[in-house]
Amino acid sequence: MDIYSKRRAQKIWSVLRFPLFLTGQRYISQAAAKIDVDFDYDGPLMKTEVPGPRSRCLLFVFSCKNAEAVHFFCNYEESRGNYLVDVDGNRMLDLYSQISSIPIGYSHPSLIKLLQQPQNLSTFINRPALGILPPENFAERLKESLLSVAPKGLPQVITMSCGSCSNENAFKAIFMWYRNKERGHNNVTKEELESCMINQPPGCPDYAMLSFMGGFHGRTLGCLATTHSKAVHKLDIPSLDWPIAPFPRLKYPLEDFVKENQQEEARCLEEVEDLIVKYRKKKKIVAGIIIEPIQSEGGDNHASDDFFRKLRDIARKHGCAFLVDEVQTGGGCTGKFWAHEHWGLDDPADVVTFSKKMMTGGFFHKEEFRPNAPYRIFNTWLGDPSKNLMLAEVIKVIKREDLLNNATHAGKALLTGLLDLQARYPHLISRVRGRGTFCSFDTPNDATRNKLITIARNKGKKVCDRNETMNKRWI
Amino acid sequence: MDIYSKRRAQKIWSVLRFPLFLTGQRYISQAAAKIDVDFDYDGPLMKTEVPGPRSRCLLFVFSCKNAEAVHFFCNYEESRGNYLVDVDGNRMLDLYSQISSIPIGYSHPSLIKLLQQPQNLSTFINRPALGILPPENFAERLKESLLSVAPKGLPQVITMSCGSCSNENAFKAIFMWYRNKERGHNNVTKEELESCMINQPPGCPDYAMLSFMGGFHGRTLGCLATTHSKAVHKLDIPSLDWPIAPFPRLKYPLEDFVKENQQEEARCLEEVEDLIVKYRKKKKIVAGIIIEPIQSEGGDNHASDDFFRKLRDIARKHGCAFLVDEVQTGGGCTGKFWAHEHWGLDDPADVVTFSKKMMTGGFFHKEEFRPNAPYRIFNTWLGDPSKNLMLAEVIKVIKREDLLNNATHAGKALLTGLLDLQARYPHLISRVRGRGTFCSFDTPNDATRNKLITIARNKGKKVCDRNETMNKRWI
Repeated sequence: MDIYSKRRAQKIWSVLRFPLFLTGQRYISQAAAKIDVDFDYDGPLMKTEVPGPRSRCLLFVFSCKNAEAVHFFCNYEESRGNYLVDVDGNRMLDLYSQISSIPIGYSHPSLIKLLQQPQNLSTFINRPALGILPPENFAERLKESLLSVAPKGLPQVITMSCGSCSNENAFKAIFMWYRNKERGHNNVTKEELESCMINQPPGCPDYAMLSFMGGFHGRTLGCLATTHSKAVHKLDIPSLDWPIAPFPRLKYPLEDFVKENQQEEARCLEEVEDLIVKYRKKKKIVAGIIIEPIQSEGGDNHASDDFFRKLRDIARKHGCAFLVDEVQTGGGCTGKFWAHEHWGLDDPADVVTFSKKMMTGGFFHKEEFRPNAPYRIFNTWLGDPSKNLMLAEVIKVIKREDLLNNATHAGKALLTGLLDLQARYPHLISRVRGRGTFCSFDTPNDATRNKLITIARNKGKKVCDRNETMNKRWI
Repeated sequence: MDIYSKRRAQKIWSVLRFPLFLTGQRYISQAAAKIDVDFDYDGPLMKTEVPGPRSRCLLFVFSCKNAEAVHFFCNYEESRGNYLVDVDGNRMLDLYSQISSIPIGYSHPSLIKLLQQPQNLSTFINRPALGILPPENFAERLKESLLSVAPKGLPQVITMSCGSCSNENAFKAIFMWYRNKERGHNNVTKEELESCMINQPPGCPDYAMLSFMGGFHGRTLGCLATTHSKAVHKLDIPSLDWPIAPFPRLKYPLEDFVKENQQEEARCLEEVEDLIVKYRKKKKIVAGIIIEPIQSEGGDNHASDDFFRKLRDIARKHGCAFLVDEVQTGGGCTGKFWAHEHWGLDDPADVVTFSKKMMTGGFFHKEEFRPNAPYRIFNTWLGDPSKNLMLAEVIKVIKREDLLNNATHAGKALLTGLLDLQARYPHLISRVRGRGTFCSFDTPNDATRNKLITIARNKGKKVCDRNETMNKRWI
């Protein structure tokens, strides 16, 4: 059973999404090293079980809010780099990074400095309605941040607040683009304008996004119709009849199952085409295909670069937009800034969504997906310039410290280490896989997984010793 | 025609959503006055037409982003109180407040101070996954902020990032609550768990939210199915067949049309009941009713307190949840912290959503709407503690400066002024209406509206003189 299959403590073990801090010996330039020596902790330090007494006490009084999912309470002021400190003073090596949303570790000196600069104050306290009244430096800030890492061929960007809103609005941009193709040079009809107001076609056409079983694209109603990783996300929520294709289930080690895996991927691609045709026959048009470069909620599932290239071809062949959801994979942890850059596509993706480690949500898109009128893709805030300001700084750090290469190096070491553990403990660890530091493995059942997490976390000193040993090989 | 009916420059004229700054003479306590004398501008100051040459130049280079909706570029560093300064140095009295999302004006001294305190730094740069790893002070911060203004009878709160996500998740909480009622003591079936993964009933039941024509509840796919204010929001986006009731179209002045308006409201309420029954017959269950206290996108539309009390009774009678969307009306501008507090409900609303002036999104709910398992209402960030920190300060300012009373006083003065203008210029201004500073009026057509906006904005000195005169009466 996949280690991700249960709700609690998902991914604690298998996710090392960004490589910056393996134990405090960072792979960094000499210029930056000085700050970091003082800044980083030298290892984990455990004082109590987790959750400790203070966390348990806080949980007890925390009854005003749906708090069943709380693991423990944190002291973020004391957390640094990759070390998360809890309210009981336990210092843990954090492979989880707040559900993969912390790009360069806790309390990074560059971000502290940014906050201390008086000229940045206004950006944090005067949040504008960005779509109508942007600040003077907004174009410049976009150039320094998002546009400086725009995927090739996608020169346009729209910012949003979170991953779900990014995907929701990407869907909308795709539906508008598709309808404009169908409409051709004809004007919008009175019937369309009237019927859309009451949720009916032709104004609200019967379009669909094709998604993959096992995928996760968010939890708002539109996104949720494309999310198929765990029942807990979807149970009791009305949905849309949109097509769902199988995602390849690869066998590991890959080199032993070349032919089987090729067949598995071919089967999935064939099903994609069948579904597009089948849904068209029942007058439901697949306007777009959404996919994650690595399915990363409810099990890290990988497919080959060839699979994604062929999927892109299928999208083009059937006139569907190709949407790559990089909410979890974007930001550098696979060794490239965007995971889909590994595929080597001839024709770029049409739309790429992001959030989490990018600090702001949003999506890149080709020129032809630009909404054809103002206020079509719009909301009050359209993101938050304070997040763009921080992202610009984060990107500077990533470039200055050559962190993409670091992710590649550290990822190789991590994968090698995991393969080694798999060879030694095959009854505990199987299906080791990964790209960059985006690594995972399976355990035989939930109980084993939970035991591994608990032992490792609650005995930090041991984990620390182990990491220090391993680290010498990794970096 | 309503002044809101066109896309561009919506609401510039008719919205004075928060009363803090009418011209710079704030209705404040002596204790706070000292700061504000130095802080506030004494009036508008226009140097160029708007958009001015620098804004036009920036617009020209701002081609990387969907920018057709941009009015002009702003200098937020120089903006203070209710005065928005643009990049050409024009200082405008801002009745628009960033689509009603600025609670206590620009660059408020209390928020500047908050940002300058070193102990708050961590909250801005270490954004946690709030649902699993909250900061130590989070419960305390909630008490100081959201829970200190919780609507009566709604002791529970869940935070979100924006208004759309707040409504989407409120819908989900309502669907789960409804399904649990139907399920009774029975367990979730295997069939439900399997069918929900492929978007099908019984796991994804055919539930609906009933909404009102003219309402606005956001633009993600679920919310959008309940939004019916302008075609530009909905055209080309697939939707759900959910029932839509008419919202009363009241005649003004209210005292001249008492009987007609009562009949109009009764007609709308009857239609609500008919729709619930009709949809049940076609096996689509209305699990909840969503409504704004004042429809505020695409025309401010009001109904009587009696209408809302009767609607609440209908919701209870049919077993539907009653969801009040206070994203735009919440935060004090109607003279009460929540607009629905004016209604005097015996039985509180079930769920109340918020965002905008609350700085963070989220929803309050009755105990029985608490999700029955962890991770059911969940996402990566679940809001942002830095917004809660700022909201706590904003609420302190609102209380310290007695701004709810100020909204009542200023609103009465504003409404009186508008009624006076209506009497003098009936060919330009009609249907004057409002609650607190949440006031609006209609103009005969778009051209008149646009002309009024342009003249007023581009001739700031005149507006300034006028406001100064009016202000003596208002405050």
